[in-house]
Amino acid sequence: MHADIVVLPGDGIGPEIVAATLPVLQAVAARHGHEFRFTEHDIGGIAIDRHGVPLPDATLAAARTADAVLLGAVGGPKWSDPKAKVRPEQGLLAIRKALGLFANLRPVKPHAAALDASPIKPELLQDVDIVVVRELTGGIYFGDKTRSDTDATDLCRYSVAEVERVVRRAATLARTRRGHLTSVDKANVLETSRLWRDVTTRVMRDEFADVTLEHQLVDSMAMHLLSKPRAYDVIVTENMFGDILTDEASMLAGSLGLLASASLGEGKVGIYEPIHGSAPDIAGRGIANPYATILSAAMLLRHSLGLEAEAASIEAAVSAALDARVFTADLAPAGQAVDTTQAAQAVIDRLR
Amino acid sequence: MHADIVVLPGDGIGPEIVAATLPVLQAVAARHGHEFRFTEHDIGGIAIDRHGVPLPDATLAAARTADAVLLGAVGGPKWSDPKAKVRPEQGLLAIRKALGLFANLRPVKPHAAALDASPIKPELLQDVDIVVVRELTGGIYFGDKTRSDTDATDLCRYSVAEVERVVRRAATLARTRRGHLTSVDKANVLETSRLWRDVTTRVMRDEFADVTLEHQLVDSMAMHLLSKPRAYDVIVTENMFGDILTDEASMLAGSLGLLASASLGEGKVGIYEPIHGSAPDIAGRGIANPYATILSAAMLLRHSLGLEAEAASIEAAVSAALDARVFTADLAPAGQAVDTTQAAQAVIDRLR
Ligand SMILES: CC(C)[C@H](C(=O)O)[C@@H](O)C(=O)O
Ligand SMILES: CC(C)[C@H](C(=O)O)[C@@H](O)C(=O)O
Repeated sequence: MHADIVVLPGDGIGPEIVAATLPVLQAVAARHGHEFRFTEHDIGGIAIDRHGVPLPDATLAAARTADAVLLGAVGGPKWSDPKAKVRPEQGLLAIRKALGLFANLRPVKPHAAALDASPIKPELLQDVDIVVVRELTGGIYFGDKTRSDTDATDLCRYSVAEVERVVRRAATLARTRRGHLTSVDKANVLETSRLWRDVTTRVMRDEFADVTLEHQLVDSMAMHLLSKPRAYDVIVTENMFGDILTDEASMLAGSLGLLASASLGEGKVGIYEPIHGSAPDIAGRGIANPYATILSAAMLLRHSLGLEAEAASIEAAVSAALDARVFTADLAPAGQAVDTTQAAQAVIDRLR
Repeated sequence: MHADIVVLPGDGIGPEIVAATLPVLQAVAARHGHEFRFTEHDIGGIAIDRHGVPLPDATLAAARTADAVLLGAVGGPKWSDPKAKVRPEQGLLAIRKALGLFANLRPVKPHAAALDASPIKPELLQDVDIVVVRELTGGIYFGDKTRSDTDATDLCRYSVAEVERVVRRAATLARTRRGHLTSVDKANVLETSRLWRDVTTRVMRDEFADVTLEHQLVDSMAMHLLSKPRAYDVIVTENMFGDILTDEASMLAGSLGLLASASLGEGKVGIYEPIHGSAPDIAGRGIANPYATILSAAMLLRHSLGLEAEAASIEAAVSAALDARVFTADLAPAGQAVDTTQAAQAVIDRLR
């Protein structure tokens, strides 16, 4: 097949991990007779520097007509002045919103070879296989904000329709897996969470009677995720809780450098990006872990291009590279790390 | 000294753990020549059942004139009907707010004997000693809420004065400890967090130049708390982030059943309660862990009554009981657990 992939390297380690990932996609394309066309655009801090805005019109226009978007990371100290009127993160939030990507899928499946790097006891991590579905275009991220000399406000809003569509997406996914959905809210305090719980209960009862539903309060979930991670299959939650819980859950997998994500909407185009940030402290040194971006590229093949076998072949190759202990510095014992390019090459070498 | 202590057992295991704690306070009083008068009042679900409201006027009036308040826990399935107009948790939120208890101190100091129960690798937990100071009377917990057929909203608001006072409290505490303060926000997305960061930076620069300040985003913090818990001394954060992060941090200590809290304001009266909930699943069986409530009573002696030596003697006795592996079911291997009363008696036996 032919596919147009918009590439948004962004800031910090973004350009390095994206540059390492494109050859993996090329290798898969060559092997399976596909043709991928990559078009690079600016987003985040680099876009502010070059165009004065974190999401240039040209970037958004290209993303809208692409088959999929592969993104690195945005942000860094250079653009973090508290007085700044434009911030790199606004570019990321704006493109998610503009493309209507309301469901952010973050799989957490610890790999045996990476368990040493996890702070969690390895016996708790056997067979852990979770996908967090984070609502991505609503909630307190996108509500009205005010600031005066004396105070500030952020409005959290959820509509019935916003909850319905993300719950449906999560439940549909649960159906293809172990058939269990955990919905996370703070219904004992928040009105938006009570709406969330009501809608979730109704949608699941009326449309997904074959999927079991469990409600958890976000504070309890922050514990249970650590004490009994095996108990979870698909977890669905609102934007802010999902942000916190997925970073917490990344610790189950040993390194944030292993976690991929897919941001999906009603249409075909999605954004695929590692869940880690731009890591300014190691940017430019060629030592960043490219696996999360490579695994995000696999999700791109699966969800936007429908290339399941190709996606699985990348995942198997990353898994084989980890088995062979091809580790970047975030995972390796001192002195035994490979660099970004070597890690990506190890994946290419193992493609079947 | 004479002290009036208002006792609010609440729901679920609340009455059991409070009943087990009062004899510990009595024993300390007898030993040090104090006289504590305990007056019991209703809050939460039991108050709804008896008085139709989760915080009866008599309860609040008694708390206002008391020297301190010892609280068990509130809530349970009986009062969790989504259609219910009054909820037990409203009583807890209302009394915190009415007494102006803006700073919730939650110490996390894993005890060697409990490390088996923690999901975290023990080598990461050596010397961990953190106090989370959670803002308790502001933020999205207390902002306006709306609900219609089609959507719901919660408003998050923070004023400069609200941030100043809790940061001062946290920084003052850091000064008596290792002199390091970590402020947690989501300043890359929320306006309230940018206010939080600005105010914190200014207060620390102008008034606490001797305390080092570090800012963390809440998502990163959810990771670092697990991967390098030793790096933290005092952590200050807003209400909702504090709720989530302290439950997560409880996993460092092995069991939620070990974590105490103090809710403090400008005045002398504070509320002291375990950070765990009413645990309806084990209520009425006499097996709940009373240590968190006993340790909360120690905080009561320290913060509201100024009885530091007495507080320390309770803490040492709990520590000695843990050393002797006097464990309730949350901590013990199967078949080796003591019950609630036995655990409390073990503490009394070890008071020096
Ligand atoms: C960079 C930031 C705005 C973003 C978010 O909070 O959504 C990031 O943390 C993420 O999880 O993708
Ligand atoms: C019961 C609930 C309202 C409460 C809170 O969220 O503050 C509890 O979780 C806590 O942490 O004390």
